[in-house]
Order: sequence, then C-alpha cells, then structure tokens
Amino acid sequence: MNTPHGDTLVDLHADAPERMDGDVPSITLSRRSEADLEMLATGAMSPLRGFMGQKDYQSVLDDMRLSSGHVWPLPVVLPLDHSEAEKVRSEEVALLQDKDGRTLGKITISDIFEAAKEKEAEAVFLTTDSAHPGVAALRNFGNWYVEGEIEVYQLPHHLQFGEYRQSPSELRKTFDEKGWKTVVGFQTRNPIHRAHEYLTKCALEFVDGLLIHPVVGETKGDDIPAKIRMECYEAIIDHYYPHRHTFLSVYPAFMRYAGPREAIFHAITRKNYGCTHFIIGRDHAGVGDYYGTYDAQRIFDQFSTEELGIQPLFFEHSFYCQRTHSMATTKTSRAMDHEKIFLSGSKVREMLMTGEPLPEEFTRSEVEAVLRRHYQNG
Amino acid sequence: MNTPHGDTLVDLHADAPERMDGDVPSITLSRRSEADLEMLATGAMSPLRGFMGQKDYQSVLDDMRLSSGHVWPLPVVLPLDHSEAEKVRSEEVALLQDKDGRTLGKITISDIFEAAKEKEAEAVFLTTDSAHPGVAALRNFGNWYVEGEIEVYQLPHHLQFGEYRQSPSELRKTFDEKGWKTVVGFQTRNPIHRAHEYLTKCALEFVDGLLIHPVVGETKGDDIPAKIRMECYEAIIDHYYPHRHTFLSVYPAFMRYAGPREAIFHAITRKNYGCTHFIIGRDHAGVGDYYGTYDAQRIFDQFSTEELGIQPLFFEHSFYCQRTHSMATTKTSRAMDHEKIFLSGSKVREMLMTGEPLPEEFTRSEVEAVLRRHYQNG
Repeated sequence: MNTPHGDTLVDLHADAPERMDGDVPSITLSRRSEADLEMLATGAMSPLRGFMGQKDYQSVLDDMRLSSGHVWPLPVVLPLDHSEAEKVRSEEVALLQDKDGRTLGKITISDIFEAAKEKEAEAVFLTTDSAHPGVAALRNFGNWYVEGEIEVYQLPHHLQFGEYRQSPSELRKTFDEKGWKTVVGFQTRNPIHRAHEYLTKCALEFVDGLLIHPVVGETKGDDIPAKIRMECYEAIIDHYYPHRHTFLSVYPAFMRYAGPREAIFHAITRKNYGCTHFIIGRDHAGVGDYYGTYDAQRIFDQFSTEELGIQPLFFEHSFYCQRTHSMATTKTSRAMDHEKIFLSGSKVREMLMTGEPLPEEFTRSEVEAVLRRHYQNG
Repeated sequence: MNTPHGDTLVDLHADAPERMDGDVPSITLSRRSEADLEMLATGAMSPLRGFMGQKDYQSVLDDMRLSSGHVWPLPVVLPLDHSEAEKVRSEEVALLQDKDGRTLGKITISDIFEAAKEKEAEAVFLTTDSAHPGVAALRNFGNWYVEGEIEVYQLPHHLQFGEYRQSPSELRKTFDEKGWKTVVGFQTRNPIHRAHEYLTKCALEFVDGLLIHPVVGETKGDDIPAKIRMECYEAIIDHYYPHRHTFLSVYPAFMRYAGPREAIFHAITRKNYGCTHFIIGRDHAGVGDYYGTYDAQRIFDQFSTEELGIQPLFFEHSFYCQRTHSMATTKTSRAMDHEKIFLSGSKVREMLMTGEPLPEEFTRSEVEAVLRRHYQNG
C-alpha cells in the first residue's frame, strides 16, 4: 500500500456538540464547497485540514505547492460574497450548512482574505476567458475566501450511488483485503468506450487492480449525467472486466476543467485513495481548445516521482486499428488514417441522437444500449 | 538513459600486441565461452571484467550477488578439462582462441579452481537432473574454472545477423539519438505470435521505445533456429510495429534455461544495453516442468528496484479472448475457457508440420508464411 500525500491520511470527522455555546453564525455551502468539504473530511485532500489561507493560496498559484512544500496544484478555498463575509468577519467559529439547513460541520476562522481572481484564473486555467467553464464559475463565486481548519459532523447528503461511495480509508482497506499491492486509478467523466477499455486494461496488465473512479460531482451541462454513466460502467464491468481485479467507486469531486493542474490534483487525490498508479490520457480534464493534447502529461515532468508518490501512466490517442484488428495508439500501430476507427465525442452524440448504430469497434453494445436509452428518452 | 550495472559500462577491447613475448599458451574457447567473451568485452555483463574467481562464484551460488554486493545470478566461468588446466596452471597469461585458431584476446590468470558442479546445478537450475539441458551442458564442461580479467582483440566471428549486432554502447547511442528516455527490452527465443505482440505493445504504451532482443546464441535443438526467427521478427515488425518506436537487435548470449535466475540475468544485461524496463512473461527462460509458471517473476521480489536498476514488467498468460475480440490475459479478461484461443508450442509445431493453417487470432499470416516455409523445407 502507498503512503498518503503528506504521509498521514487526514480524518476531520468529529462528533457534533450537543449544543453550541452562544450565537454561532452559519455559512451555507455551495454544491462545490460541499464537495470540497467531503474531500477534506475523508482525507481525499490530505494533507489539507481545511480551507486554504492566503499564504497557501498564493504559494499554490505561484509554485503549485503548499507553503509546507508539498505539491498542490489547485486552490481549495471557501468563497463568500461581501455580505456573507461581513457576517462572519469578527467571528472565531462558523457552522457549515447545506442548502437545506443541515449542519455538516464547523470552521475555525483564522482569516478572511480577498480573492485574486484574475491571477487565479490565469494560473489555474491558463486563461481569463469567461467562456471557459472553470473561469466562469470562478467569476460567479464570492470575492472573499475564508481560511480555517474544519471539523465535519456529517458528510453531505447524497441521493445517489450510496453503495459506490467509499472514502479513502475504506478503499485502502478494500485493496488490502483483496491483496492488491499496486492499483491503477482511472478518472473518467465519460462512458467507457473501447478506447478507455483498452487503456485501463493495458494498465491493469502491470498492476494488481484497477479502480474505476468516475467524477460524480458537478460537471458541465453537456457531459453525460453521472447516473447514466454509472449504468454504462456497470454494464461494461459486468460483461468485460474481471471482477477479481476491478473495483468501481465514485469520486465526489466536482470538475474544474483545469487541464494540466487538475491532472496533478486527480493523481494526488487518487494517491490518497490508495492508488499507486494513475492514468493520464489525452487532454485530461480539458475543455475546448484551452490546453494542448498532451499538456496534462507534460506537467508531470515538473515533479519527481518521489514527491508525487504516484506513478502516472501516459497514453497517446487510441483507436481501433483495422490493420491489426485491435485497439492501439499511434505508438503501437502502423495503421494509416483510413485504417483507424475513431469517433469524436460530438460525432458519437450525433449518432446516438439520430439513432445511427455505434460501431462495435468503438463501443461495446451493452454500453451503447444504455446510451441509446438515455438519448431516446432525453 | 539509465545507468549500467555497477555504474560504468565496461569495455574490454584492446589492441592486439604486435608480437607476444615468449611462448604464450592458448585456450580454445567453446561456443558458449565465446558468447561469454563477447558479452564481457562489450560491457553487456558490466560490472564483470573477466571470468569469475572462486569468491564470486561461491557468492553468486549462495547469495545471487558478486562479492562486491552487486546482484548477479549466474556464474560466468571459463571451464577447462584436466589436461587444458594443467597446460596453463603455472602461466600468468593465456591467449583465448576460437576453434579456427583466431586469437580473440587474452586472459591474465589469477587462479584455477575446481567447479562445484552439483552445488552449481542445484543453485542455478534448481535440479541436478541431467535431462535438464543446462545441467547436461554443465556436466559436459571441464571441471576446472580459470579466473582472470580479459582483454579482447576482436569479437567472435559471426556469419549471421551482422546488421543487427549492436553492442550496449551502440544501442545506448541509438536510443539517445531516437530520443527514447525509457526503453522496454523483450527477450525472445520464439517467433513473435499474437501473444508476444500483445505484451510487447502493451508495454510499449508506457515507454518511448521497444527493443526486440532475441537470443541468437546457442539454444536447445528443438527451438526454432535463429535465422528463421529473425525472418519472423522482420516480417511482423515490417507489417505491424511502428518503426519510430521499435528496434530489432540480437542478443549474443546462449540460453542456459535457468528459469528464475536467468530472468534476473536477462534483465540486468538488458539494463547494460540501455533498457529501463524488461518484460518477464510466464515461465521465462524455463524448460520442461522444472520451474513454476511465475517463479521467474517472483524471484524479483528478493531485490529492490534500486539495486536491480531496471523495472521488470510482469505478464500473465495471454490469449485471444473471443468475448472481447482482443488479446488479453487472465487479469484483463472475463473469458471462459471455451472463449480463449491459445495453442501450445507443440500444437503449433504439429499444425505447421501437417500443413494445417494457424488461426489469425494466434499468429499473423506473415509470420505463419515464414514458419511454414521452414517446416516444409525442414
């Protein structure tokens, strides 16, 4: 088993106090902040113990490191608008509540500082273009970031995927019970087409187990809903993945679409979930044309394998090669372009909407059936 | 680029002296000792600088290490029979000659000691059964081992594969020119069937280049001759491997059939040739039923990755899976036995001899054509 980032798996769960002394103000969390709270509480964001202060925030933007020196690529901050910030400015403690008024935990406030949004956008997303969904979301947040360690009384309330929600310590225990010493993590926000099946299985050849770990937090509107994707994962695992070496669990983070920096974040958080290896394909966590196809692989060159503590596995563009009658990438195939079967995401959507069948070389029929049901009902 | 075993690539080439002083005796090398001399001369056996003395020999048998502490699994010794040993016993230097009387180099004799053949057989081959080809060869050697550093004036004379004979320093230069930082080595003494194609390509997905490095030294009588195998390699590379990421070169060692220990030897010598990764499949370097299917993988557990300095990549049994219509292993496939296409070596030989076609799922037709020509002419 590997070591968590910062050596110790953080656990921020605490018993809720029977009653709070005095008049404690509350902060209502957005869905994104709820997701961050869950990732913090369970140790998925180890070594973080709460929302970042100015020093870590600036250090992350400038150097992709916490002020402690640990690699950390993305701000994890609790944004408030002006009036919310004023409400808690002179307080030592605030409750953290969901939109339905459930108290999830509390924050011990150590500072409230102003966001540097243009700098943050440029550093994290490499653009200040509001057409970028991450930049757009950033601009919509409040301008004030609350720093503080948190305690969590209960995790955010989820209606879906209960059986697939394993915390880092639960997954580590599972891997241990299965005797998996090496585990490759696969991040996904798409159905598993043949290309994904190829790269996950290729990776699995070298390790003991495969963790299929889809994002089920907030994604952008035109991504396929998590519920449908989960049905696709269940279908393909059921028919085509050996159960002794495959585990499906959900990753509660929301998508930032920060490309290269988010690839590092995805890898480090998966390390906390117990993975020793992590797959980085083309345009990982990308959106539109904001990042080069392999930028999310190249960024790993900036860090040593030791300080990351998880081995990235890089894949090139994969496709069905009609010369060899098998899946391949540009690195392993001599196929000419006309011998390659590859469909773009928009082409696939179009075919599903018009009812045109997806080729078996592109998608397993069991996955296609789930998608077709979704598009026909949609 | 990686570091050679023992940190420096050994080079034992020297200019032949114009004339030898006095009456220098000569030792006629067997084909095996010629192969060892070549591997020593070019640095493929770094850090060795000659044939082993008693201290290294015992240390290798007992601990799989040289007396310096470096991992080393196999004796590299120069065996002489009694009368040959007597001839050089009181000499300081002897010439090393091939069977045609060419002087290949000289040895500075530091000791002559008696072989411990039963102990050697048990340690290296895990058996003293003379039906084992390695044990049989060992019993046929002389009983006296000559210790000494060597100088090499010319490499053994080869009639075949001239264009494919690259020394470790030549291969390292080639990899460097190609910009390959990571290279996986593939040891083979068989034609490349689909199973081998699958595992080499799977490995190639994670590194920059693939070195197909077949044994062309002595193999056992029923193995397919190197010349035919080379034609198979040329055919499959030409049609199915991307040339920018694949290199074919020959490995001059002879086969010992020492299973687990030879797997370590194959890995360490490939490290000297510039490989960073090395494929270990099922029953690597095995023969008959002397070793467990995965013993040649398990032996790597006895050493740290740092002291080996090359990353082994382990593969399970691979086959064509009719459920997914692709190559797979027991780790990546849910196929039932009746959905697997796998042929034993003896079944393949039988089909080739009777003229029955090999299924395309087992062997590429271009490779089959080469084999069929051989078996029909043979």
